[in-house]
This record gives sequence, structure tokens and C-alpha cells, in this order.
Amino acid sequence: MIAVTILGNNSAVPSHNRHPTAQVLQSAEHVMLIDCGEGTQMQMGLYKIKKSRINHIFISHLHGDHYFGLIGLLNSLALNNRLNDLHIYAPEKLKAIIEIQMDVAGAGFPFQLYFHKLENEEVLFEDKKLSVECFKVNHRIECWGFLFREKKNKRKIVPRQIKKYKVPTSFYENLHSGEDFINGKNEVIKNEELTTAVEPPKSYAYCADTAFYEPITEKIKDVDLVYHESTYLHDLEKKAVERFHSTSKQAATIAKKAGAKKLLLGHFSSMYETLEEFKTEACEIFENTEIAEEGVCYLA
Amino acid sequence: MIAVTILGNNSAVPSHNRHPTAQVLQSAEHVMLIDCGEGTQMQMGLYKIKKSRINHIFISHLHGDHYFGLIGLLNSLALNNRLNDLHIYAPEKLKAIIEIQMDVAGAGFPFQLYFHKLENEEVLFEDKKLSVECFKVNHRIECWGFLFREKKNKRKIVPRQIKKYKVPTSFYENLHSGEDFINGKNEVIKNEELTTAVEPPKSYAYCADTAFYEPITEKIKDVDLVYHESTYLHDLEKKAVERFHSTSKQAATIAKKAGAKKLLLGHFSSMYETLEEFKTEACEIFENTEIAEEGVCYLA
Repeated sequence: MIAVTILGNNSAVPSHNRHPTAQVLQSAEHVMLIDCGEGTQMQMGLYKIKKSRINHIFISHLHGDHYFGLIGLLNSLALNNRLNDLHIYAPEKLKAIIEIQMDVAGAGFPFQLYFHKLENEEVLFEDKKLSVECFKVNHRIECWGFLFREKKNKRKIVPRQIKKYKVPTSFYENLHSGEDFINGKNEVIKNEELTTAVEPPKSYAYCADTAFYEPITEKIKDVDLVYHESTYLHDLEKKAVERFHSTSKQAATIAKKAGAKKLLLGHFSSMYETLEEFKTEACEIFENTEIAEEGVCYLA
Repeated sequence: MIAVTILGNNSAVPSHNRHPTAQVLQSAEHVMLIDCGEGTQMQMGLYKIKKSRINHIFISHLHGDHYFGLIGLLNSLALNNRLNDLHIYAPEKLKAIIEIQMDVAGAGFPFQLYFHKLENEEVLFEDKKLSVECFKVNHRIECWGFLFREKKNKRKIVPRQIKKYKVPTSFYENLHSGEDFINGKNEVIKNEELTTAVEPPKSYAYCADTAFYEPITEKIKDVDLVYHESTYLHDLEKKAVERFHSTSKQAATIAKKAGAKKLLLGHFSSMYETLEEFKTEACEIFENTEIAEEGVCYLA
């Protein structure tokens, strides 16, 4: 299961008690941060997310509303004496921005900070349970989307049944993969009798900030949950084009063309005090749409 | 009158719903910001302080809890299309930190930003109503205190009385300065009959972050209101010395020796959930002490 908690859903400047972009993704034992606008560490405090548990941070691009909170977060982790490794994936120049600010403070990190610069569309992280890829989106400056995919979980062995049918240890891996068991008497014992299914793997795509950009749909094909920026309502499509942002309907079109199961809209312009209209407009094209509300956890 | 609104009273990391250091000073037509920890622009929103009105920003030193919110504030001013000049007074390296972050965003300021590096104890700003000086404090890295002094206001002429006693226009300046008027008949008309007193000029000293450092008392002699950091309670004096911070009682001692009228304590360590004890301890040495509470406006 992938759970995404929204810490900030506003664009550019904080307003209407909405904050700049940040999201926390949880899957298996991982707690990952996607973008980190100013005040992200305070939002984590508010929504009871332990910052010490974050092990990977993905920064889409270097507009301030997506990373101004990072140095404060890192500083706090250092002052709280974090020791575990931390990985940051971001456009290359962020490294110098972190370094100059640690340097003037005469400070360092008590933990190992691995900085991975984004340069190609590739797998950034992979373990037995999850992979993270980056893909290009289309903004005014270099900007990346991220695709989180859980791996297929092995079927779970039922010990009581294993004992009953005397399955040897050597065959366990085959059971995990879903094979039936044939015993010494050539009787076929169905896999379903020996194992239980586990939750199917989920996927989450983060697409911000970006103009309407169809190549994204190929990258995030059939994703369970897609977050797509929706800075403006559709009457401001022209402004969206000029600013390399998207409208409600453009976000919905991407979700539809990608065959996504669910769409989450965010990065709303400060010109909008209320957000219901974004959902109404998007639903005309893609029904399963939700507004990304701060503090709410959405499941892929 | 000088009014100081506290936006953040915590040290190092945000905690217990307390924020890193920032204060807004208002005097005559000026709105000045002293330090700018992460989230300062959000705190301004919360406490209804218009960020567009700020014309001077003073940054004491380059530990993150005193400036990480500055780039976000500047960015928002730029996006809100501020046009008025803005002056920043800070240690020299802050300039490069601002520049690199504007540069990666491909952004600039629509207003003129004047960066004044702090290097000597001197008057940083002066107009007809207010002067601001900086002075050295004693912290782990280069760190400055700031002294805000209002100028003596001229006495206010009472038009009705001026007319009655036929005071010529050429004598108005003398009246402003408090002189009596002698008319053609050699009668002395007391200044008090012709003018009214105005509020006496006030002064405010900001002393953070600093170890207990007696030379400060000479710089801020007889100040109306002094803010002095008080990171720890007095039982942790040893830790305060090591970290170049102060305790409640040390702050009170500085206020007492300086002959200040009132003391404001702030920059509390996150180890303290409640703050009453700081006041209790300080009051043993200097009675007129208050805890700097966020959102509260203190008058010099």
C-alpha cells in the first residue's frame, strides 16, 4: 500500500492557510518526502509525521516553493543528532545551496548525506519492495516527475496447510510465486490451499510543476494514483500555458489518457480562496478526482 | 513609540508550536524586521502583519534559525510584485546565499534590493525620527545586536494660543525646541502655554544570540526595552557557556547593569515545554521582565 500525506497544496506563495508543496509518501518501511516548501518541518509536526523516519527526499525543481523548507529540515535533523543515512535526489545545483548554508553556520551533518543529481530518466532507487523512477515534465526550468512502484508481493505460506500436505522447505519459493504443489502420490495441491494472497502492488506518480505535456501519460501508464498540478481553473488556460502550469481539465486529461485509477489535484494558485471548482471541472473529464487537502492521507 | 511583535521565540528547531526567531518593529512610518527564521512569512499572515510594508530587514547572524525564512519572504515579495526599495543589513555571506537561490530559479526582484554588510559597530540607518546601530555580541559565529533609538520629537504648537499671543512664524522653531516667547511688551509667555509635549523618544535593543557579555551593557545603556536571549534556565549555565548562549539570570544581569527599563526574554531551548520558570528566575535579578510570547506586541 502507498499512502501519501499532503503537507502543502498551494503554489508560489503561502496563502489562505495553504502551504507550499510537500508530500510524505509511506510504503512498507519507507518514509519518503516529495518536495519540501518552506514550513514543511512545521507541517510535519502538526500532522504527527516523524521527520527522523524520512530516508529519501525527492525535489522536483528549484523554484523556492518546492525546496525552501529543505535546509531547515536538514538543519533540524542535524541538531536532533540524526545518525541514519539520508538520500536527496534533486537538480544538481541544490547541492551548492545546501553546502553554502551549512558552511556559513560552521556546521556539518552527523549523518551521511548522499546527494543524487537528477540528469536522466532512470530508476533512482530500488529495493525488494519499491522502485522510484524520475521522468521529465515540462516547466520553465528543469523539472522532474517521480513514479513510485511497489513490487509484486510474494504469496504468504499458511503453516498449518504446509504441515498437512507435507510440503518440503525446498518448494517454499515456488509456493511464494504461486505454483501448485504435486506430492509423491502425484496429487496436485492447489497453491490457493497452501498460501494466501497479499495486497497487490500499488503505484503513485507525482507530476509537478508542469504544463500540459502528453509524454507524461506514457511514463505513468495505468498508475493507481496520479498527483498532477492544477494551478489554474480552465478559464485561465492561456495563463497556464504562458507560465508552464496546468489547469484542472488538463490535469484530468493526463489522468484519463494515462489510464490512471485516481487523480489528485494540487498546487493551487493563491488567487483561489476555495477549491471545489477544481474538482467539478476535472470530474467532467476524469471522474475519480480529489482535491489534495493538507493533512489528509490519500491511498494509492 | 516603538512596538515589537514577536513572531518566533524558540531556538534552533521549531517545537511546542514555537517558531524560530523573528520580530517586527514598528516606529513612526517604519516597519522593520529583525531576524527571519523559517516560516516568518506565515507567522506574518497569522498575526496580520503586512509583509509589503517592511522596508528594512536586520539579520543578526547566519545560523539558520535566524534567516532560513528570508529567501521565502523575498520570493513572495517578488511574486507579489513589490516595487519599493528594500534594505537588508546582514553578515556579508548572506548576499551569496540569496543570489544563488534566485539564480537557480531564473528569477529576479522587481524592486531594488540594497544589501548592507555588517562589518563595524556603526549607525546603519538614520532618518529624522529613528536611528539603528549595530553592536557586537558574543556568539559561536559572527553575530550582531541592534539598537533602535527614536529621536526627540519636537513640541507641538497649539494654533489657538499662537494666535492669542501673536507669535510670529519666525519663532516657531524656537517654540518646537521648548523656548519661552517674549513679546513686544517684554512679557514672558511660557512655552507650556504655547505648545504641548509629545511622547518622549523610545529605544529598543535586540541582543541575540549571545553568551553573557558585559560590553553589551555599555552599548545599550538606559534603553527602554531590551530583548536578550535566554536559551537556558540558570541550572544549565555551563551548557550556556559552552554553546555561547545565555541563561535567564544572565539576561537579567545584563538588563540590570545596562539600566534598562524592561527586559524581554526569548530564544528558548526546545527542551522546555513551558516558559514561566524563565520569568521567575530573571525576576530575582531584574523585576520588570517578560517572556516574549509569539503574536504579542511589546511596547518600548
